Formats: sequence, C-alpha cells, structure tokens
Amino acid sequence: MTETTGYSGGGFVHVKNPHLDSMEEDILYHLDLGTKTHNLPAMFGDIKFVCVGGSPNRMRAFAQFMRRELGLAGAGEELPDICAGSDRYAMYRAGPVLSISHGMGIPSISIMLHELIKLLHHAKCRDVTIIRIGTSGGLGIEAGSVVITDTAVDSSFQPRFEQVVLGEVVVRSTELDKDLAEELLACSREIADFPTLIGHTMCTYDFYEGQGRLDGALCSFSSEKKLEYLRRAYDAGVRNIEMESTAFAALCGLCGLKAAVVCVALLDRLEGDQIRASHEVLWEYQQRPQRLIAAFIRQRLGLGPAGRSQH
Amino acid sequence: MTETTGYSGGGFVHVKNPHLDSMEEDILYHLDLGTKTHNLPAMFGDIKFVCVGGSPNRMRAFAQFMRRELGLAGAGEELPDICAGSDRYAMYRAGPVLSISHGMGIPSISIMLHELIKLLHHAKCRDVTIIRIGTSGGLGIEAGSVVITDTAVDSSFQPRFEQVVLGEVVVRSTELDKDLAEELLACSREIADFPTLIGHTMCTYDFYEGQGRLDGALCSFSSEKKLEYLRRAYDAGVRNIEMESTAFAALCGLCGLKAAVVCVALLDRLEGDQIRASHEVLWEYQQRPQRLIAAFIRQRLGLGPAGRSQH
Repeated sequence: MTETTGYSGGGFVHVKNPHLDSMEEDILYHLDLGTKTHNLPAMFGDIKFVCVGGSPNRMRAFAQFMRRELGLAGAGEELPDICAGSDRYAMYRAGPVLSISHGMGIPSISIMLHELIKLLHHAKCRDVTIIRIGTSGGLGIEAGSVVITDTAVDSSFQPRFEQVVLGEVVVRSTELDKDLAEELLACSREIADFPTLIGHTMCTYDFYEGQGRLDGALCSFSSEKKLEYLRRAYDAGVRNIEMESTAFAALCGLCGLKAAVVCVALLDRLEGDQIRASHEVLWEYQQRPQRLIAAFIRQRLGLGPAGRSQH
Repeated sequence: MTETTGYSGGGFVHVKNPHLDSMEEDILYHLDLGTKTHNLPAMFGDIKFVCVGGSPNRMRAFAQFMRRELGLAGAGEELPDICAGSDRYAMYRAGPVLSISHGMGIPSISIMLHELIKLLHHAKCRDVTIIRIGTSGGLGIEAGSVVITDTAVDSSFQPRFEQVVLGEVVVRSTELDKDLAEELLACSREIADFPTLIGHTMCTYDFYEGQGRLDGALCSFSSEKKLEYLRRAYDAGVRNIEMESTAFAALCGLCGLKAAVVCVALLDRLEGDQIRASHEVLWEYQQRPQRLIAAFIRQRLGLGPAGRSQH
C-alpha cells in the first residue's frame, strides 16, 4: 500500500481521520493542550508559519529572534512556553509564527506532528507553511553550509517513509513542496553570507551505526566500508544526513501542509564523525537556517529584505 | 546477521568498537561531556545504578527523591544538571545513582545510550545495573499497574531489534536480565501498594497509528481492526506498550549492562486511546516505578526496606 501527498483547495489543514469528529474532547497529551481546556481557534487561528526544530532552547531563541525581526511589541522579553505543563515539547509564538521543539528522531517528531496538525485543524488555520530548521551532518559540502531539502530519502536512498500500522508496513511519499524550496533558495541568494544549496537529505533512525559513524559504543565496520557507504549516498544525491525529514515530509504532505526542511551542516561526514567545532562556531552555524527563514517570512509578510530590520 | 547479548566477567562495561582506542579525544556531543574536557573517572567512577526515563523533569525529581531515600547530604537542595551545556538530555546524580532523561522513541534513547555507555567505559565503572523507568499504555491491565518487562518485543510481537548499519538490517536480541526482573518483582511484593506484574513489553516507532490509536491526525482503520490487533498482542503475552524498550534491551545487552524496564500503565488500551486521568492521578502513577526502584536500590545497598527512610 502506497499513499501519496494530498494538497488540495481551501487552504485548510487536512486531518485524515474519520474518528475525530465523533470525539467529544481531543486531549493533545504531549502538548498539554486540549479542545475543552483551551480555546484553540482564539489561541492559534491566525498562525501562518510553523517552524520546528529539535532543541527546546533553539526554538525559544528562534521565537525571540522572530519577535525582533517582525518588530513585535514585547520583543526582548521572556517568552512563555505554551506547553509549559509538559516537558516533552516546548512551544512559543511570535505574531503569526509558531516555534516548536520536536526532540530527536522520527518517533519524537511524529508524536509532535500528529498533535500539532490536530491543533492547526481544531484552530481552523489556513494556508500554513511549515519548515523544519535543524542541524545535520553534511556530505561532501563545507561545514556551515545550509541545505534546503528537495527530497527526503531513507537509509537506502529511497524517497519513502515506512510506517507500521497494526503491524503492517505502509509506504508513504516524502515529497516536499518544490516551489517553496526554490523560493527559499532565491531568498538565500539575496541575504546569505553563507553557502546554501538544494539537495537530497538522508534520514536515519540512528546517529551512530545508522549514519556510518566509527565513534559509537558499537561499531562493527571499517573506515573503508563507512566511506564506501557515504560515497554511495553522495552519488545518489544526498548532501546532508539527519533524523526527522522523511516522517516530517510524509505527515505534512498527507495533511496538506506546504513543507520545507532547511538544515545547517555541522561537519562534513567525509572528513570525520565527531562534532569538534567550538561552541561559538556551532552557535553561529545554528543561526544560519534561522536567519534564512526570518528573511523568507519577512518577505512573505511584505516587510522588505532582511538586514533592514530594526535591531 | 544476528547478534546476541554479551554479558561477561570483570563487571566492566563493554564498548564493542575497535576504533575508540585510537581516538585522541572522545566528545560525547549530546551530553556536552568529553574525555579531554572532563575527568570522567573522577566524576562517574563510583556509579552503580543508572536510571533512565523520557522526561527531564521526571528524572530530576527521581534524583531528588533518591537523595532523600539514601539520606544524602544536601537532599532537598536544587540538583545541578550535569549536561546543562546541552538541552538534548538532562543528567543528575544522587550518590551511586545516575538519573538521565532519554526523550521519546528509539532514535532518541539510542543516541543517549551510545554516549552513556562510552561514558561508563571511560569512567571505568564496574557492576552497573541500568533500569528504564517510564510510562506506557497498558494492555488488559488496570491503569496504574506497574509492568516489569521480561521480554521487549517489536510491533510483530517478536523479541528483536532491527538496526540499520551501512544500509543493511542487523537483527539484535532484546533479552533482559531475568534475575533482575525477579528481584524487582520480589521487591514490589514487600513494599508496593499498587499492582505489579511481569510481562512482555511491545515497543513501537509511533504513538498513534503505530500503537493502533484512533485519535491521531491520520487513521485509516476501524475500531474493530484496532481491537483485533491489540488482542493479538495480548495473546502473545504483551502487557504494555511503549517506545524505547527494544533498543534499550539490545544496546545494554550487547555492552554487558544488567538491564531492566519498569513502566507504569497510564491507561488500559483495550478501554480507550486518550490519556484522560487528572494531572494528580498521573503524577501519583509516575511515582510508582520510582518508589519500586528506590526500594530496590536501598535493598541492594543494605539500607533496609523502604518506608523506614527518614523523610
């Protein structure tokens, strides 16, 4: 069974679940939100951009950055965590932008996306663009490069996400929005003082053996076998490796959300495994996807190019 | 290729990676620790018990609880997060007990375990017992019951963990320490005012469709099909469902750590999908595995039965 993406008219978020309508209440357990306890349309109805990323601190910093970039009142103040009742995820808003952490790996981002997509549905949001901003290992590219994903692929370099449903494997498309990727690349050409490219992103279930690292607690392969695998990935068009993009592309695609993945490479995996750059260098690298997305959102909102914002 | 568990003499943690010896420095990136920046033997050499669980707040609370239970100086004071430089995981210690969060899902716990196992190896720890304490969905058991896992099984009810290495699937045993499970059950009989049982634990990659829930953003099956799947799981011996046990059992087993999984059931999945209990009830449920493990550690340390500790 293969399912494909389902963009359609109206601009609403599609929840593909006939059971939801008959539920009296929907408790979004891991977000500590619910349809009876919270007025979701009032809280979230005007959200147009959702940005997700692994680290709670980084997503709080991104929301603070966006408040400054959008010239919002209260910029600089501490932002409240909308999911403060749970420590599974952290959620912040800056005007029409929602910034949410998703933890590490496909299972963690999947739980968050199921509940976020239901939230956007209950809130009657329209025309939402969702972007994952993250960190990744680069493949044959300079550390600090930003990769905009055209296709998310699995560890066999195939554009698919396999989901087990009642013990059976369902294969889902990992298509992302091509126009959005091009728009982001064009945006990067106007503002960026760092290399940005479009390429395939490989998504794995493991950071160590699953990405061919030699420095885990377990490793049964040689340096040569590792490089052979990574070179095959490069030849298949892979330019970076992370742990969430296939599930993100599949779930967002099925639910009608225009989605993009923009990750900075913290190192070139053809050169090594350990992330050795200083905290300062890594911190600056991690700003790069945020700066690109801020420029994109400013442009979409008609606020003019980045760099002219009042800091 | 099938690998099996590798307990062996000496009591040391086994790192099965020939490349590690030749590394000048080992940076445990997601823990923000390293062999050059930290004196790991001095910091961790006397650790005998490692307790892991999903939520950072819960693992901080567990460390604080253990400090009181062990009558340690400074009990009641704020505990420093040993991994404060990273917000990927949180780590606290209480005497010989290390308490660490692992986030949600197999990829997230795998990253933590690779780095934790290397930490225990670098620190030259001996005779370490590791226990995952967590929350889960129950299957045909009362909400609030505590399940001690005898075997971790996958979504096909098989005792295996499939790990992709250089694009190929490696199958690993998910055996846990049987004596430890029996010791924990015996401990529960002495102290517990809640139901405790031994059973199989099913580990899935997804919380919604992957566990047969009807309340995700996507659901393509009927209530009847769901119940049929969950009943098959029950008949195969599954008593609870969570998202980390197969990877935990496989990695700990391969590295010679005596391991157990002790999870409370927040609901009975044969009765429903949504976690509806009040925060207070859920809070008390979440204490149960902690109380059982505290009693077990007190007993191992010769501190006498729980309940006689000075609060």
